[in-house]
Amino acid sequence: MAEVVAVWAVVVAAGSGERLGAEHPKAFVAFGDNPLVAASVSALDDHPGIDGIVLVVPAGWEERATFMVDDIGAGKVSIAIAGGASRSDSVALGVAEVPTDAVLILVHDAARPLVSAELIDRVLAGFYDGADGVIPALPIVDTVKRVDGAGRVVETVERADLCTVQTPQGFLADVLRRALAAPDRATGTDCASLVERIGGTVVTVEGDPRAIKITTRDDLRRAEELRDAD
Amino acid sequence: MAEVVAVWAVVVAAGSGERLGAEHPKAFVAFGDNPLVAASVSALDDHPGIDGIVLVVPAGWEERATFMVDDIGAGKVSIAIAGGASRSDSVALGVAEVPTDAVLILVHDAARPLVSAELIDRVLAGFYDGADGVIPALPIVDTVKRVDGAGRVVETVERADLCTVQTPQGFLADVLRRALAAPDRATGTDCASLVERIGGTVVTVEGDPRAIKITTRDDLRRAEELRDAD
Repeated sequence: MAEVVAVWAVVVAAGSGERLGAEHPKAFVAFGDNPLVAASVSALDDHPGIDGIVLVVPAGWEERATFMVDDIGAGKVSIAIAGGASRSDSVALGVAEVPTDAVLILVHDAARPLVSAELIDRVLAGFYDGADGVIPALPIVDTVKRVDGAGRVVETVERADLCTVQTPQGFLADVLRRALAAPDRATGTDCASLVERIGGTVVTVEGDPRAIKITTRDDLRRAEELRDAD
Repeated sequence: MAEVVAVWAVVVAAGSGERLGAEHPKAFVAFGDNPLVAASVSALDDHPGIDGIVLVVPAGWEERATFMVDDIGAGKVSIAIAGGASRSDSVALGVAEVPTDAVLILVHDAARPLVSAELIDRVLAGFYDGADGVIPALPIVDTVKRVDGAGRVVETVERADLCTVQTPQGFLADVLRRALAAPDRATGTDCASLVERIGGTVVTVEGDPRAIKITTRDDLRRAEELRDAD
């Protein structure tokens, strides 16, 4: 499918780096010799199934982003500037820049630098089943508890049918555009939840335990270890 | 507190290694130069706050366990042989071997080799607040979905008050003994859930992202990487 229909990716790099204790936006903290976002852009740019990439960066970071894109030799990237407050606003802005002939759109968080070609392949392959959205998921192997504000356990949650999900999340372009048009889009924690709200069918494919989300300095160090262990 | 009251640990090493594709029980697969369980036993044995350890192993593995304990020079360990079918049965068997003057009992999974002294410290320190149980917990940073048997998303689950929990889980010894006496103990996914069922107060302390649970071969490799990155 990836060879015959137009597939675009939107990389969201607009989040703050507050929990990293960084002055830079999270996507622009150092990850090896490059800003964090370079790893994702490079992986998507290298993938033969991806026709184009819209990189959404915070206002004031366009030049740095352009420099990074040149630096890593990514040839499929155009840059959009985030305007809205929420992640969904940033995604919508990026999606608006995707050509209308794109059939599939993958939405990826710059905070997940270790996205592999195999993970992208699995998301694209998931569309053969007729889904509106395909998202990578991992089983939860630890016991899950619900806690109150003081950290006291309220209940043990049945975890057998729960999973955590990652990005890239893939969608039929027209379904994603409709989902993002919802007035309450800012309250969605991920694009899949917006597609679920309009009744879209979202299926899971096997995620990648290495494709961790960077939230803290420890995560950043762990991702560097995982990358170097390759 | 750890200096003035008797604290014992029960290490559960009775699980099968099915998902590891190993012929050995999971606790006895190789982790560096030793069986996996040696890492946990060593960390608990080295901790000055722990007075004694009961190691629960599958029938047929007592000699191998004795050899391992001698090999790593762990001086606080006695070995018990698992008889029951469930994890709770193994825990109950180990707890039955703990001296009755023990005030606190930590229950630890051998499948979590990277338990640190700091994590043990945090669990012990949690008892100053008057809890019946203290368990290490980590926030869930990824979006959580509930899926059906075919991997199709049923709903996005609010994750703000959810966390995943680890071991060692610490308990007041008398409360743990009461919780384990329940006839339905086999249905508890962890000891804390049994304590919750009898109305005990369980509080969370900060977990350790490195203290991962080994389920698959990939987990084993990742734990080796994390250990070697120290």
